Amino acid sequence: MSLLVAVTWQTQPWVERFKRLLPDRDIVVLEQDFDRSAIRYVATWGPKPGSLSGLPNLEAIFSLGAGVDHLMGYPDLPDVPIVRVAQDDLTHRMSEYMVLHCLMHLRDQRRFDEDQKAKRWNPDRAPPIAGDVRVGIMGFGVLGQDSARKLKMMGFDVAGWSRTPKDVEGFQVYAGEEGLTPFLNRTDILIALMPLTPETQGMLNRSLFEKLAHDGRLGGPILINAGRGKLQVEADILACLDDGTLQAATLDVFETEPLPEDSPLWTHPRVTVTPHNSATSEPDATARYIAQQIRRHEAGEAFEAVVDKTRGY
Amino acid sequence: MSLLVAVTWQTQPWVERFKRLLPDRDIVVLEQDFDRSAIRYVATWGPKPGSLSGLPNLEAIFSLGAGVDHLMGYPDLPDVPIVRVAQDDLTHRMSEYMVLHCLMHLRDQRRFDEDQKAKRWNPDRAPPIAGDVRVGIMGFGVLGQDSARKLKMMGFDVAGWSRTPKDVEGFQVYAGEEGLTPFLNRTDILIALMPLTPETQGMLNRSLFEKLAHDGRLGGPILINAGRGKLQVEADILACLDDGTLQAATLDVFETEPLPEDSPLWTHPRVTVTPHNSATSEPDATARYIAQQIRRHEAGEAFEAVVDKTRGY
Ligand SMILES: NC(=O)c1ccc[n+]([C@@H]2O[C@H](COP(=O)([O-])OP(=O)(O)OC[C@H]3O[C@@H](n4cnc5c(N)ncnc54)[C@H](OP(=O)(O)O)[C@@H]3O)[C@@H](O)[C@H]2O)c1
Ligand SMILES: NC(=O)c1ccc[n+]([C@@H]2O[C@H](COP(=O)([O-])OP(=O)(O)OC[C@H]3O[C@@H](n4cnc5c(N)ncnc54)[C@H](OP(=O)(O)O)[C@@H]3O)[C@@H](O)[C@H]2O)c1
Repeated sequence: MSLLVAVTWQTQPWVERFKRLLPDRDIVVLEQDFDRSAIRYVATWGPKPGSLSGLPNLEAIFSLGAGVDHLMGYPDLPDVPIVRVAQDDLTHRMSEYMVLHCLMHLRDQRRFDEDQKAKRWNPDRAPPIAGDVRVGIMGFGVLGQDSARKLKMMGFDVAGWSRTPKDVEGFQVYAGEEGLTPFLNRTDILIALMPLTPETQGMLNRSLFEKLAHDGRLGGPILINAGRGKLQVEADILACLDDGTLQAATLDVFETEPLPEDSPLWTHPRVTVTPHNSATSEPDATARYIAQQIRRHEAGEAFEAVVDKTRGY
Repeated sequence: MSLLVAVTWQTQPWVERFKRLLPDRDIVVLEQDFDRSAIRYVATWGPKPGSLSGLPNLEAIFSLGAGVDHLMGYPDLPDVPIVRVAQDDLTHRMSEYMVLHCLMHLRDQRRFDEDQKAKRWNPDRAPPIAGDVRVGIMGFGVLGQDSARKLKMMGFDVAGWSRTPKDVEGFQVYAGEEGLTPFLNRTDILIALMPLTPETQGMLNRSLFEKLAHDGRLGGPILINAGRGKLQVEADILACLDDGTLQAATLDVFETEPLPEDSPLWTHPRVTVTPHNSATSEPDATARYIAQQIRRHEAGEAFEAVVDKTRGY
């Protein structure tokens, strides 16, 4: 009746949270001796290769984050359900990030930051309002849809794009390969919130940026990526910023993390860098979510947010 | 049947807009000769003293902005209705400003700006979410209520304060002198959106800041003022930032505008300065609004948003 905590960092706080929430279970970590046949659940982020093999009574693996790309390439992944985090705390944080950064671009806050630095009082301009700006959200799942609702409520003209067609009240949702070009053609601010899979890797590249709307009110298209770093081709982003194919970018995720010190993204005047924390899995809420999933499962109910391994997300 | 345009800046574009929208009227400006008895309406911002006297057939004065403090102290103000701008375009802009700046404070965006400048990758922290933060809106009128709805939708815990008691679904609204202290005591981010009147002048001072919540999640109370500059005592803001009574401030309005070059507000690390354009009266939308008010009036309907001169707003 044990839960194995297999994380690469901050192991002890996780153990303590689970002990508090599941006082009737043994909570064990890789570094100690434990009975492998007693393990029914694993909670993990970036487990070491081999560490999840030989667990004959394993029933489920919980990812400590919303994404599971860290598990998909994992060798000898046990054949049990993988449950990811899909909880309001994380979802709301991501929507806060998206609304904040769309508004910063809409209202040209970086220009006002510069003006303040230069003590320049320069109110003159007729800025667009949210209703003048088309936001396109690639990856219209749990996170994409919550951001969409909040951006729409702020006045933005929002559409989505997903792998499969879907009906989401209040939004036009484009789907698949054939929906991609019309979706990009109507998009001023592109938000990437899809998972990293073999299909999506490297999608955010020059040929995609060239299809974005170039007749918008923001002086050119803007990219916001908080999905995964490997969705984007950073050399293309930089070249497109410099030749006007992109106007600006806000990036929470990067090809290599932490972002290397010599990356030109750090200092580019039209790039905002945040350190992959647009939506942290707040540990207490995440542990509560996992404990709740275990209780559901043991009461005979299905897990929420089970990963489809053939899709990879 | 004339409309007199009496503004201190950009006269000609206003004249052209009104000519387009009211092609059957004479549109005149102070600088030209015109028949004073033909003037039925004035559209104005900061008229020169004396310029609005001797208009025997005047029916209404339109303020080109939402605030009318620029008219209230005006000598020999004609005794006709004063109609102010209360239109969605302006209201939505103000809400964009408030949501943007509340989210910047919530998510400590200035810290990430500093980190980017220093090429510092520092995701570690457990930031609060909107639901952890109490926003208090002083001045719960057209602008305050729209901001409140949008901030609430983003998750913030929002309350209002106004001169008279009011019932606004979904919000606790404190009122008057006796409601002020309990309102301040529960407020982490204070938004000022009240008009400048003899009662409100200088209200945003040390004794008020000291009553704000000091047990909140943002490290101290935050002030956002987009009402009028003379609501605030800038010396108190600066001293309170320095002794911890205030954590940060975002100011769109100032005691003297443009903000003088020697003001320490420009360079204070925890002050964000914007040049009184949180919600510009977008000229086309404003002119359309005034033309529509004239049409309503001539069809026998009441003006919308008439100023109560005894209240001063
Ligand atoms: N930066 C951060 O801090 C952070 C935090 C949390 C999550 N994330 C990232 O956000 C991602 C999304 O999370 P979520 O909870 O919203 O996941 P989700 O509910 O599974 O939604 C994923 C969306 O992406 C779409 N999609 C997947 N593959 C696609 C493809 N090949 N072409 C087009 N659309 C595709 C899906 O389409 P269908 O609807 O048709 O399936 C779905 O709409 C995670 O995978 C993670 O990488 C980042
Ligand atoms: N920075 C900018 O770009 C910008 C742009 C537009 C407007 N503004 C400012 O925003 C102000 C508000 O605009 P609005 O359209 O929302 O006006 P409004 O609808 O008249 O609302 C004013 C609110 O302030 C309250 N109030 C007035 N005097 C008060 C007092 N002595 N004590 C407590 N509350 C008091 C009123 O209380 P009651 O509800 O009880 O009457 C009302 O709730 C304008 O006057 C203008 O100064 C600034």
